Amino acid sequence: MIKVGIVGGTGYTGVELLRLLAAHPQVELKVITSRSEEGVAVADMFPNLRGRVDLRFSVPDQAALEACDLVFFATPNGTAMKMVPALLEAGVKVIDLAADFRIQDIPLWEKWYGMPHACPEVVAEAVYGLPELNREAIKGARLIANPGCYPTAVTLGLLPLVEAGLVDLDHLIADCKSGVSGAGRGANVGTLFSEVDGSFKAYGVAGHRHMPEIRQIIGGVAGKAVPLTFIPHLLPMIRGIHATLYADLANEPESLQALYEQRYANEPFVDVMPAGSHPETRFVRGGNTCRIAVHRPQGEGRVVVLSVIDNLVKGAAGQAVQNMNILFGLEETLGLDQIPVMP
Amino acid sequence: MIKVGIVGGTGYTGVELLRLLAAHPQVELKVITSRSEEGVAVADMFPNLRGRVDLRFSVPDQAALEACDLVFFATPNGTAMKMVPALLEAGVKVIDLAADFRIQDIPLWEKWYGMPHACPEVVAEAVYGLPELNREAIKGARLIANPGCYPTAVTLGLLPLVEAGLVDLDHLIADCKSGVSGAGRGANVGTLFSEVDGSFKAYGVAGHRHMPEIRQIIGGVAGKAVPLTFIPHLLPMIRGIHATLYADLANEPESLQALYEQRYANEPFVDVMPAGSHPETRFVRGGNTCRIAVHRPQGEGRVVVLSVIDNLVKGAAGQAVQNMNILFGLEETLGLDQIPVMP
Amino acid sequence: MIKVGIVGGTGYTGVELLRLLAAHPQVELKVITSRSEEGVAVADMFPNLRGRVDLRFSVPDQAALEACDLVFFATPNGTAMKMVPALLEAGVKVIDLAADFRIQDIPLWEKWYGMPHACPEVVAEAVYGLPELNREAIKGARLIANPGCYPTAVTLGLLPLVEAGLVDLDHLIADCKSGVSGAGRGANVGTLFSEVDGSFKAYGVAGHRHMPEIRQIIGGVAGKAVPLTFIPHLLPMIRGIHATLYADLANEPESLQALYEQRYANEPFVDVMPAGSHPETRFVRGGNTCRIAVHRPQGEGRVVVLSVIDNLVKGAAGQAVQNMNILFGLEETLGLDQIPVMP
Amino acid sequence: MIKVGIVGGTGYTGVELLRLLAAHPQVELKVITSRSEEGVAVADMFPNLRGRVDLRFSVPDQAALEACDLVFFATPNGTAMKMVPALLEAGVKVIDLAADFRIQDIPLWEKWYGMPHACPEVVAEAVYGLPELNREAIKGARLIANPGCYPTAVTLGLLPLVEAGLVDLDHLIADCKSGVSGAGRGANVGTLFSEVDGSFKAYGVAGHRHMPEIRQIIGGVAGKAVPLTFIPHLLPMIRGIHATLYADLANEPESLQALYEQRYANEPFVDVMPAGSHPETRFVRGGNTCRIAVHRPQGEGRVVVLSVIDNLVKGAAGQAVQNMNILFGLEETLGLDQIPVMP
Repeated sequence: MIKVGIVGGTGYTGVELLRLLAAHPQVELKVITSRSEEGVAVADMFPNLRGRVDLRFSVPDQAALEACDLVFFATPNGTAMKMVPALLEAGVKVIDLAADFRIQDIPLWEKWYGMPHACPEVVAEAVYGLPELNREAIKGARLIANPGCYPTAVTLGLLPLVEAGLVDLDHLIADCKSGVSGAGRGANVGTLFSEVDGSFKAYGVAGHRHMPEIRQIIGGVAGKAVPLTFIPHLLPMIRGIHATLYADLANEPESLQALYEQRYANEPFVDVMPAGSHPETRFVRGGNTCRIAVHRPQGEGRVVVLSVIDNLVKGAAGQAVQNMNILFGLEETLGLDQIPVMP
Repeated sequence: MIKVGIVGGTGYTGVELLRLLAAHPQVELKVITSRSEEGVAVADMFPNLRGRVDLRFSVPDQAALEACDLVFFATPNGTAMKMVPALLEAGVKVIDLAADFRIQDIPLWEKWYGMPHACPEVVAEAVYGLPELNREAIKGARLIANPGCYPTAVTLGLLPLVEAGLVDLDHLIADCKSGVSGAGRGANVGTLFSEVDGSFKAYGVAGHRHMPEIRQIIGGVAGKAVPLTFIPHLLPMIRGIHATLYADLANEPESLQALYEQRYANEPFVDVMPAGSHPETRFVRGGNTCRIAVHRPQGEGRVVVLSVIDNLVKGAAGQAVQNMNILFGLEETLGLDQIPVMP
Repeated sequence: MIKVGIVGGTGYTGVELLRLLAAHPQVELKVITSRSEEGVAVADMFPNLRGRVDLRFSVPDQAALEACDLVFFATPNGTAMKMVPALLEAGVKVIDLAADFRIQDIPLWEKWYGMPHACPEVVAEAVYGLPELNREAIKGARLIANPGCYPTAVTLGLLPLVEAGLVDLDHLIADCKSGVSGAGRGANVGTLFSEVDGSFKAYGVAGHRHMPEIRQIIGGVAGKAVPLTFIPHLLPMIRGIHATLYADLANEPESLQALYEQRYANEPFVDVMPAGSHPETRFVRGGNTCRIAVHRPQGEGRVVVLSVIDNLVKGAAGQAVQNMNILFGLEETLGLDQIPVMP
Repeated sequence: MIKVGIVGGTGYTGVELLRLLAAHPQVELKVITSRSEEGVAVADMFPNLRGRVDLRFSVPDQAALEACDLVFFATPNGTAMKMVPALLEAGVKVIDLAADFRIQDIPLWEKWYGMPHACPEVVAEAVYGLPELNREAIKGARLIANPGCYPTAVTLGLLPLVEAGLVDLDHLIADCKSGVSGAGRGANVGTLFSEVDGSFKAYGVAGHRHMPEIRQIIGGVAGKAVPLTFIPHLLPMIRGIHATLYADLANEPESLQALYEQRYANEPFVDVMPAGSHPETRFVRGGNTCRIAVHRPQGEGRVVVLSVIDNLVKGAAGQAVQNMNILFGLEETLGLDQIPVMP
C-alpha cells in the first residue's frame, strides 16, 4: 500500500482526488491538510464521501507528510514550491497539481504568476506529467508537475499533427471552453450561479497562464517557438473542457484518422473516435479519458481537431493518479476505471 | 458469472444498467435487445461505454433470452408482462424495471396504466423489490418488480415513522421533485432543453401513476388504507429526486433521529445524516445511496423528512442490481460502490 | 416626473429595479448609492444597462436623497431602519425592499433578524405593500414595507381560501422552491455555480425569516394565529419561485376555480389559470405577474394550490414599482408591461 | 397601424415574434397560422402571452394573408418560397425568417438545402436584411431575407476589418457557440434536456448551412471569394450566440477600437464595448443589441473579435421587426427597447 498525503484538500481538485484515491486498491490515505478547516471531517464538507473517507483535515505537519510515500499538492499556486524541497530531501515523492513546477523558464513563470519562485533550482528536475508524452521520464521522477487542464486537452489534440510535421506552426489556434469547476471553490462573484448560468463568455483574452504552458509543450515537441493563439471561454456547466483546435496543413497527409489512431493505439486514456465524430464533454464526465476527433472540413486545407476531457479528472486529479500509478510501478489504469456518468 | 440479458436498453435506465453491469465482477452481459436499433453498437449510441461494452442491440429472441440466468426489462410499461411468463417457465429469473408487476390490485393497475394486464396470474408471485422492506422475500423470488423512483424515495423516508405508528396517517404529504431523466429518452417537446431549463413546475397534480404504488406500500406497512397526497414536480436538472415529506405526530416520539438511525443501522444503501442536515441530490449523484434527514421544525407537531436518491440508480438501475445481488446470493453491495460524483 | 433615489443598488434587486425604472415613463433616476462601488458607472457593473442608465454609484448623501420624491432601499436587512426616519421627516416617501418594516411585532423581528430595531416607533406606520391585500392603505402611506418573495407567492396563493374560511388553518403547508438569485449577489461558496447546478436541496428547515412574515399576514387575514409550516428549497436556476400549497378543506366549497377567479378578477398582476393548469416559473420570467392554479386531486379533501412569481419582479423590484405607481396615483401597471421572456 | 400576419408561429422564432409584436405600438396582429395547431389559442401554447395575445392559430388562408400589409414567415426552410410569389403579387410585403431567400446562388442553395428552389426568379429581388450593411436597400424592398443567427453575429463582428482591408482573407476563422433554442422546438432526442445539460459539443463540423451564407456576405463585402472556416457548437443554455472570430492582420491598423467605434457610431443595435471587454451573452438576453469587443492578444499579429447576440432577437425575430420598422418608415428602434434581462 502506498501511504499518501494530500496538502490542501478543500477545493474541487481535492475532493476529486479523494473520490479517486478512496476507491484505489493500493492507496492508504494517511493525512489531508487544511489550515482553515482544521478538525473538520472530510465527509462533513463533502458528503458524497460519507462512509468512504474517515479522515479529518489537519494543519500541515512536516513529520506527518514525511511519513508518506507520496504527497499530492492540491493547493493554490505558490504553496507547493515552499514545501517541496524538504519533502524531496526526506525521500517523499511529490505530485503538484498546481502550476509551481510546470514552466521551466523561471523568469517567464515569475512574470505570469506574479511572484518570485521559491525554489528555482528544483524546477529543472520536475517532470511534466503528461504520460502520453513523458511516460519514461515520469517512471524515474521524484517530482511531477501535473499538467494544467487546458494544456492537457490542447496538447493531446495537437500532438500527432505537430510530431508528424504536418502543419503550419505559425497559424495554430486553440479555442477552448471550460466548465466552471476549473475556476475553483473560492467565493467569487464571478462564479456565482446567477452570474454564470444561461450565459457564455470568453475570458483572459489578453493573456491566460495556460498560454505559456501550452507554448512550452508544443514548442518542445516542434523544436522551435510556436506562437499559438489560446482563447479560453467559460461554459455554464460544472465539468468538462472542449478544445477546438485549428491548424493549416503544410503538407498533404495520407490519412489524418490513421495518424491519430496509430499515435494513440497503446494509450489507455486517449480514445480516437471514428471519423466524423463530435465528442461531447459528457462522454468523459467523471472518467479519465480524453476523447478526440479529427476533421478536415470540406476537404480544404484546414484541420479541425476536437478534444474533450473532464477538467477535474484527466485535467487534474485523474491524471495525478495516473502519474502515481506510473511512478510506483502499478498498472497505469488501476483505480481509474470509472465509466463516465451519462446522462 | 451470472449470464444477463437486457430487454430494451436504449433508454436512460438502460444505459445506466449498462454502466453498472459493465463494471460488475460477477456479470456477463450476453444480450441486449432493441427493435429500433438492431445492429447498432451500444457504444455508438452511448459513447461513455466505448471500450467497456462490446455488444450490439439485437431484435428480441426468445432462445437468446432463455439462455440467460437473469433478464432485466428496461422497457416501457406493458412490454414485460407479455414476455415474462415464458421466461419464468424456462427457469430464467426476471427483474422488471417498469411498472408491470408493482401493483397487486389488477383493476387498479389497469385503471392507472390504461390497458388490460397480460398475465394477472403472475402478478401475485412478484416481489416488490425494495430490499429495505422485503429483503427475505427477494432472496427466494423468481420475479422482482423493481420499485418506481418516487416510491423508493418516499417509502424510505416514511418507513420508520409508519412502522413505529408515530404519525397521523390521514395527513401524510409527499412533495416530490425529480430530475428530467425520469421522463425518459423519448423525443417529446415537454422535455426539450429549451422547455425545461431555468424553469420549474408541478405536473400530474390530478393524479400520477406512482400515487397508487406509494399508497400500496405505505398502506401495507400501516395495515390500512393511507390517503397520502403525492405531488410530483419537474426540476431543471438531469438526475436526482428530492422528497419532502410532511407528517403530523400522533404520539410523542423519544428521538426521531435515533429512530431513523436504528431502523437503517444495517442498511448499506440508506444513510441517515446528522440531525439538522439538508441532503442535496448531488450527494448521491451516480451512487446507489438514499440519504435522509429528519426534522421537527420549531419543535412543533409536524415532522419534515428529506429524502434524496439518484432516480436512475437507487430509483432504477442500481436498485435492480442490488436486487440481483440478493437474488443470486452475492454481497449486496457488489458492483455498487461508485462514489457519488461531486461537484 | 417622480424624482427617485436608490440606496444600495449593487445587488440583484438593485439591477432589476434599474431595469424597470430606466424604462418607466414617469421616473427620473436621480441618485444610486453604494459605498463599495463609489464612482463606478452602473452600466459598467451591469452591461445590460449600457445606453440606458448613465448614473454612477455614489456614497449615500442625505441631501441628495432628500431631494428625491421617493427612495427605494435595496439594502441588506438593518440598513434602511437607520436612514428612514430622517427621510420621512424630510417629506420623502420610502419603499423598503428589505425586511426592516415587515414585521409589526418588534421582539419577534429582533429575534429572527438578530439585532435590535433602530426605529421601532416607525414600524407601526409602515404599510405592508401587497397591493392585492392593502391597496387602499398603500395609497396614503409614507413608508411601504415591500413584501418578501416567498410571502408574496404564498399569500396570493392562499388568500382566497383563507378569506372564504374554507380550510383548516391548523394544517396549512407551504412547500416553496426558489431560484438562486433570491440568495443575493454576495460571494458565498453555497451559491457558487459548481455547488448549485444540477442539484436540489431544502434549506432553513429549522426556521426561515419568511415564516413569521407569512404567519403574520395569513394570521391577520384569518383573525387568529396560524401555525403554517413553511419549507424553502433551492432550485438550480436563477429566477422564479414556485409555491406548492396544501390545505385541508374544512367546508365544502362551491367551485374553487370560481372562487379564485372572482377574488382576482380586477387584479392586473394575478392571473388565475384555467382549471387543471400547471403554472411554470418561466411563464412569469421577467414579468410582474403571479400565475396561480388551484387543484383538488382525486376529488379528495385536500386542496393543492400552485403559485408562481419571478422572485426579482413580483417578489421584489416589480412589486416595489407597482407600489410606487399606487403611491403616486399613476396607472398601476405603468412601466410594468414587460411580457415574460420564453423560452 | 401595420396589419401583420405570421405564417408558422408555433416555434421559438414565432413566440419571440409574438412577444415583440404584441408590444409594438404600430402593429395590429391579424392572423397567425399553423396547420397542426388550428383553433388553439396562442396564449394556451405560450402562457407568457396570456392577456396580451388573443389570436388563435388558423390554417393558412390566402385571402386572410393578402389582407395584411406584411407577412412574416417563421416556417421551416422550403415553405415560404411556395407562398411568397402570390403574396408579392397581391402587394403584400414579406419578411422571411427562414433561409429560402438568403443565398443568391440558386444551385448552391439547392445543394445545401437539399431541395429544388420553388421560385428562383424571386430570389434576385430579395434583400438580405442586415440593416447595418443594407439599410438603404431594405427601405425599398418588397421581400426581405432575414439573416441567419450565426451569420448576423459573425458578419457584424468582421465587417469593420473586412471593409477596411486590414486582414488576410485566407485565414478567417469563426468559432461560434449557440444556445439550444437555435435548434427549434421540434421533438428531437438530440435537444432533450438530458442530452444537452451539463455538456458541450461541436456539430456540423463537416459543413453547416450558415457557412455558405457567411461566405456570401463576407465575400460580397471583400469583393472576392473568402474561404472562411465556420465551426458551430451547442451550448447548454437556451438563448445566446457567442462568435469568437480570428483574423490575421495584413496591414498594421491605427486603432482597432476606434475603427469599430466609428463603423458602428450610428447603429442603434450594435454596441462596441470598451477595449479589453469580454461581452457575455446575458448582456443581450431578450434584447436586440449585438455587443462586440475587439482584442489583439499580446500585441501579436492576430485579432480576436468577440460578438454576442440573442439568437432569437437580433438573430431572428428582433432583426425581423427592425427590418419591418425600416420597411414601413418607422423609427428603427420602435418596439425594440427591451432592456436585456440580467441576471
